[in-house]
Amino acid sequence: MSKQILILPGDGIGPEIMAEAVKVLRLANDKFDLNVELSFDELGGAAVDKYGVPLADETLERARAADAVLLGAVGGPKWDKIDPAIRPERGLLKIRSQLGLFANLRPAILYPQLADASSLKPEVVAGLDILIVRELTGGIYFGQPRETKVLESGERMAYDTLPYSESEIRRIAKVGFDMAMVRNKKLCSVDKANVLASSQLWRAVVEEVAKDYPDVELSHMYVDNAAMQLVRAPKQFDVMVTDNMFGDILSDEASMLTGSIGMLPSASLDANNKGMYEPCHGSAPDIAGQGIANPLATILSVSMMLRYSFNQAQAADAIELAVSRVLDQGLRTGDIHSAGTTKVGTAAMGDAVVEAL
Amino acid sequence: MSKQILILPGDGIGPEIMAEAVKVLRLANDKFDLNVELSFDELGGAAVDKYGVPLADETLERARAADAVLLGAVGGPKWDKIDPAIRPERGLLKIRSQLGLFANLRPAILYPQLADASSLKPEVVAGLDILIVRELTGGIYFGQPRETKVLESGERMAYDTLPYSESEIRRIAKVGFDMAMVRNKKLCSVDKANVLASSQLWRAVVEEVAKDYPDVELSHMYVDNAAMQLVRAPKQFDVMVTDNMFGDILSDEASMLTGSIGMLPSASLDANNKGMYEPCHGSAPDIAGQGIANPLATILSVSMMLRYSFNQAQAADAIELAVSRVLDQGLRTGDIHSAGTTKVGTAAMGDAVVEAL
Ligand SMILES: CC(C)[C@H](C(=O)O)[C@@H](O)C(=O)O
Ligand SMILES: CC(C)[C@H](C(=O)O)[C@@H](O)C(=O)O
Repeated sequence: MSKQILILPGDGIGPEIMAEAVKVLRLANDKFDLNVELSFDELGGAAVDKYGVPLADETLERARAADAVLLGAVGGPKWDKIDPAIRPERGLLKIRSQLGLFANLRPAILYPQLADASSLKPEVVAGLDILIVRELTGGIYFGQPRETKVLESGERMAYDTLPYSESEIRRIAKVGFDMAMVRNKKLCSVDKANVLASSQLWRAVVEEVAKDYPDVELSHMYVDNAAMQLVRAPKQFDVMVTDNMFGDILSDEASMLTGSIGMLPSASLDANNKGMYEPCHGSAPDIAGQGIANPLATILSVSMMLRYSFNQAQAADAIELAVSRVLDQGLRTGDIHSAGTTKVGTAAMGDAVVEAL
Repeated sequence: MSKQILILPGDGIGPEIMAEAVKVLRLANDKFDLNVELSFDELGGAAVDKYGVPLADETLERARAADAVLLGAVGGPKWDKIDPAIRPERGLLKIRSQLGLFANLRPAILYPQLADASSLKPEVVAGLDILIVRELTGGIYFGQPRETKVLESGERMAYDTLPYSESEIRRIAKVGFDMAMVRNKKLCSVDKANVLASSQLWRAVVEEVAKDYPDVELSHMYVDNAAMQLVRAPKQFDVMVTDNMFGDILSDEASMLTGSIGMLPSASLDANNKGMYEPCHGSAPDIAGQGIANPLATILSVSMMLRYSFNQAQAADAIELAVSRVLDQGLRTGDIHSAGTTKVGTAAMGDAVVEAL
């Protein structure tokens, strides 16, 4: 039976980088008999333009029916002034929530070929390989009530709610421990338990789940300290698990440690490993349409998809190897270019990966 | 009329570093006719031990009556397992809130003598001088309701509330703009307005306040991007203003960019510039009692106190100059020690500053 993949190129550089990822995916399909079928739709600003909303019901239905979703990136200045309720990001949050994609895996890996690109000293980041497991469908991103109102005094006020239930914490903690088991067996759970009630429950539940993983060395860290330690000595971490908001902040910080966020893929999984895959970087409207964006994070997202959702480790490995080869050949898009390497555009980079594969 | 300063040494290394700061303060008092009077009390774990609570009513009254408070650091493993309601941090949060210390100023300055200590490349951080203005008495730290409860299903859940009113945002925004005016006239307001209702109000109010500061170049940045940009190119920032939680995370990240958090003071001010001053670092229980902690952040907190609460710029400058001199002499505590410099203990470092002053 064929596997259905829904492709959502999105906004900004999304369509350009997706075109390259699709080339790679089609070739992998032929080469490894993956039997995948692709269909295409819109998310974010492109969906606002086409359907009037950033995630149309029919698109959501297609995503539900698909076996995996591959996303480019969403957002851009064109939609900055529209009604907040239909901003591009709302489409992203809605698809995450509606598909139950609660486990967001964000690797921060330093490619040896790109070691110079980091703003950190080489000895601090050489060999860096962290996996951040971020809770993605709960917490303050979706908590109710949330409201902006005018007080009797005439003053405006607004509030958000940060809720977590035991089961939400338990399932993401399990993902953290499972990932640690297949890596270096170290899990750091990040919270703010000295201040937040939700973090106190978070810590308690993570401790409970830990009993089922006696081989994993568990530590707890406050989020402010984690933000410091990522700068000071990032290699102390293996897997980090944390809530939606802290995960948003720390995964971006961690990815920037590598100096090449244009290289980093991510996966958002549901309880059955159905997933949505996307590059960690954004839609980069400033360079959209110029054919210079780095397609490698999206290509590596294809690899993550084959690995996690389709259990095609061989094809996934082959794509990663092909990416490593083009880096070895000295090919670089502008974001990772440095003296002595060859600057190429989006399509040339995609073609090189296809060639290497 | 004499100025009253309440000294709260706190826990861990607090008493050791405070002893040195008090030496410096006493000398400055004599030299510059500051006419300050010191009194001493306990906060945090030391207060739990003495009074049964981390902030006794009588201590709070003394703090209210004082013209400024100088704090060491609070917390330690000894009090980790006690009732959360009386943990050391609760005393800190309570004194901030009760004294109305809504404006937390956290400079991240790279001392040229200590440039090597940073984990970032020298060219990325040379000359770094950022001021983070953190809202300190509102937001999710104090928001009500907050609760842990058992649902009908038997499952536990917990939640916190993140509220901000227009007036809370306006007064901290003003501090941000005022600070930018006496610095490089650039203010970056950090929020998560693409997700949070409170951040949308934050951004709107900051925009309103901006009208009174036409000379300040204002930008807005999402917190995840700010966490990245601090790693990528921290020198793009002059003053950053943000809420309590984001400020906790970003100020710690920023201070670590300098590689010498043992050097960084902070001020927490009320509407009349009455303030509490403390080092940015924690109570470091692992090295407490060994006489090796770095007292310079606390000594520089004295300088900040003289500058902001007592308008004694001359005395403040003199203390900063004295600190710079001992660094020039090559004296270093263990945390900032490197090859070719002289390792000294807490008291020797304090004595050297006294000597230089
Ligand atoms: C676009 C935004 C809503 C989103 C988030 O905050 O989750 C993005 O920053 C991310 O991390 O995927
Ligand atoms: C100890 C803790 C409650 C405190 C905070 O989160 O504000 C600390 O991290 C700080 O930044 O001063």
